[in-house]
Amino acid sequence: MTSSFYPPHRTLMGPGPSDVSARVLSALARPTIGHLDPLFVDLMDQIKELLQYAFQTSNELTLPISAPGSAGMEACFVNLVSPGDTVIVCQNGVFGGRMKENVERCGATAIMVEDSWGEPVSIDKVSTAFDQHPEASILAFVHAETSTGVRSDAAALCALAAARGALSIVDTVTSLGGIELLVDAWGADAVYSGSQKCLSCIPGISPVTFSPRAVERIRNRKHKVQSWFLDMQLIMGYWGGDSKRAYHHTAPVNDLYALHEALLMLREEGLEAAHLRHRRNHEALVAGLEAMGLAMVVAPEYRLPQLNLVAVPAGVDDAAVRGALLKEFDLEIGAGLGALAGKTWRIGLMGFASNERNVLYCLNALEAVMAAQGAVFAAGKAIPAARAVFES
Amino acid sequence: MTSSFYPPHRTLMGPGPSDVSARVLSALARPTIGHLDPLFVDLMDQIKELLQYAFQTSNELTLPISAPGSAGMEACFVNLVSPGDTVIVCQNGVFGGRMKENVERCGATAIMVEDSWGEPVSIDKVSTAFDQHPEASILAFVHAETSTGVRSDAAALCALAAARGALSIVDTVTSLGGIELLVDAWGADAVYSGSQKCLSCIPGISPVTFSPRAVERIRNRKHKVQSWFLDMQLIMGYWGGDSKRAYHHTAPVNDLYALHEALLMLREEGLEAAHLRHRRNHEALVAGLEAMGLAMVVAPEYRLPQLNLVAVPAGVDDAAVRGALLKEFDLEIGAGLGALAGKTWRIGLMGFASNERNVLYCLNALEAVMAAQGAVFAAGKAIPAARAVFES
Repeated sequence: MTSSFYPPHRTLMGPGPSDVSARVLSALARPTIGHLDPLFVDLMDQIKELLQYAFQTSNELTLPISAPGSAGMEACFVNLVSPGDTVIVCQNGVFGGRMKENVERCGATAIMVEDSWGEPVSIDKVSTAFDQHPEASILAFVHAETSTGVRSDAAALCALAAARGALSIVDTVTSLGGIELLVDAWGADAVYSGSQKCLSCIPGISPVTFSPRAVERIRNRKHKVQSWFLDMQLIMGYWGGDSKRAYHHTAPVNDLYALHEALLMLREEGLEAAHLRHRRNHEALVAGLEAMGLAMVVAPEYRLPQLNLVAVPAGVDDAAVRGALLKEFDLEIGAGLGALAGKTWRIGLMGFASNERNVLYCLNALEAVMAAQGAVFAAGKAIPAARAVFES
Repeated sequence: MTSSFYPPHRTLMGPGPSDVSARVLSALARPTIGHLDPLFVDLMDQIKELLQYAFQTSNELTLPISAPGSAGMEACFVNLVSPGDTVIVCQNGVFGGRMKENVERCGATAIMVEDSWGEPVSIDKVSTAFDQHPEASILAFVHAETSTGVRSDAAALCALAAARGALSIVDTVTSLGGIELLVDAWGADAVYSGSQKCLSCIPGISPVTFSPRAVERIRNRKHKVQSWFLDMQLIMGYWGGDSKRAYHHTAPVNDLYALHEALLMLREEGLEAAHLRHRRNHEALVAGLEAMGLAMVVAPEYRLPQLNLVAVPAGVDDAAVRGALLKEFDLEIGAGLGALAGKTWRIGLMGFASNERNVLYCLNALEAVMAAQGAVFAAGKAIPAARAVFES
């Protein structure tokens, strides 16, 4: 007989969701009010302001899509792409491939710029793609690739798109709150993210922001947006600055309580402090992993502090280690994806989960599990190496 | 300065969201675990079974879409409709119009069958539409119109569609859990609902179920589904019976804890008992409203017990009454929509909110507010009339 579900208390150090704080969970569970309640409309205004801060933008059209990051991605594509358009899509991991799917389902052509998984997007290749396809009206790329832990140069890519008269669509699902992200300064046009990574909110919500140029293109569309649910012209009627909100869909009221609280925590800490914290915990983790004899896959200059791609040592059974971490330590780390499956782990240090306790806990657990499996490595060195970073 | 948001404790008697129980809110706030965690996969299986019970179906493809009801609607249309198709759409309220939008955005033609707002869908008119459009491959209609409080004869409409070789798409957003809904017995093919009505879960999730005929049509599609996020062939890979779940999008983990608990409460009570409860509270509310001198708009045989359309008496200011109920009683009732705006109220008695306390509270509050506004009505009669129903 099915009964109430009481989850264990995991430590979430995979590619997301990340640990959600008790403060956010508590906000989540506050009494539900109506989605047109005047107090809820006030809350929506606050969420918009907090998102503008997190994205570092003054874009008027900044709001949370009522669905996960992949719907946020789709919202950017279906509103900006029309049938017959040409879109340059950069792929250096899983999510570039998903962008291609989105472009094609809009009846447009995707020009793929491919880089190896584990490498950043090549600016030169993108520049060449624009030379070969001057008709391209959009450049789409991933700022922080969740599948590989690689950061690409979003500022340079947005500038390149602007110089070619194209709009930029930028995936910041894993970057928002974890590393520098300057939507206005970089001139990014359509930007989407997720609630469950460095914001450490529950999964299910996708913050987005659109520049005035992007809004203009949406307003001038000749083809209706193929999705009614994600049609920004309709959503603007509910989330717009007007005090008379038009009903579009029922907002996920409690999820937005949680998002509000998570964004508030980010603002209280401050973006710079949050980025520094992510950087420091990453450095400690890497020091510990390397002291243990494990190797990082991504070159230091492109590494995301919030998502660490680690090579599974020869002879070690990837799935057995992850299974033991989950079973014996209630610790989730991520598997590799695609070509990296079985060969890499993805260790997340995102948002609330990016803290000293988690770094030490993870190193300790990995040491214990690998020792139990008879893997040869340098024992007893990881924790001191990580501590040295924290104490420096 | 923005600070944590503490909502008031409203009584939600509008068109949804409805009151969420402390039990569901408590489930919602349990610690987040990963969306690929084996324990979460078990929970997904349980949710599927509980949804099959709620929908009274053995459909294998039964799951919650990770977004609100309007995305559930879109999931049904984009997966079943292809460009060039003809779809008969019944409109007797707001949501038929939204269905038309969906059909047209799929590149198909919507043949509209219109009935007055406040009336059920006419079976004869639908039959005539099939005569005139034998090429129609889908019939779409709303079982329980949230904008008017009207129940249409879903059994007859599904049978009619089947007799004409068409599939049926049925909106059960407001009916699921509140009135009889027999997906298999009626032969409904694609059915979507919402979490925030008679399930009394938080808003943001849309349960759907697809018949084997519908699944066959999805598998035989020649055009790719225009939405990547809502493509059921991809979603099946994550929600399917296979123990190897393929990552599609990050599931809204905590929202699904809440949905699981709400569905569990429905099964504990039993569908028949839940329907009887909705019926009884509706009868008490109507007795009280009529004793007060207010008039119901919908004919008794088509009334939804969970959503009561009440005529605003001549000379009474609709918005002022709703405003006072919210301000002085923390009580939300719904405004009229479209042609009914300003002329009607929509009083919900949905799910957990359908209880004796709410019926009496609402009658008491309405009496007080209307008296304060100098509206002429029969004072002191509503509560005894409602009590008489409860005591009968």
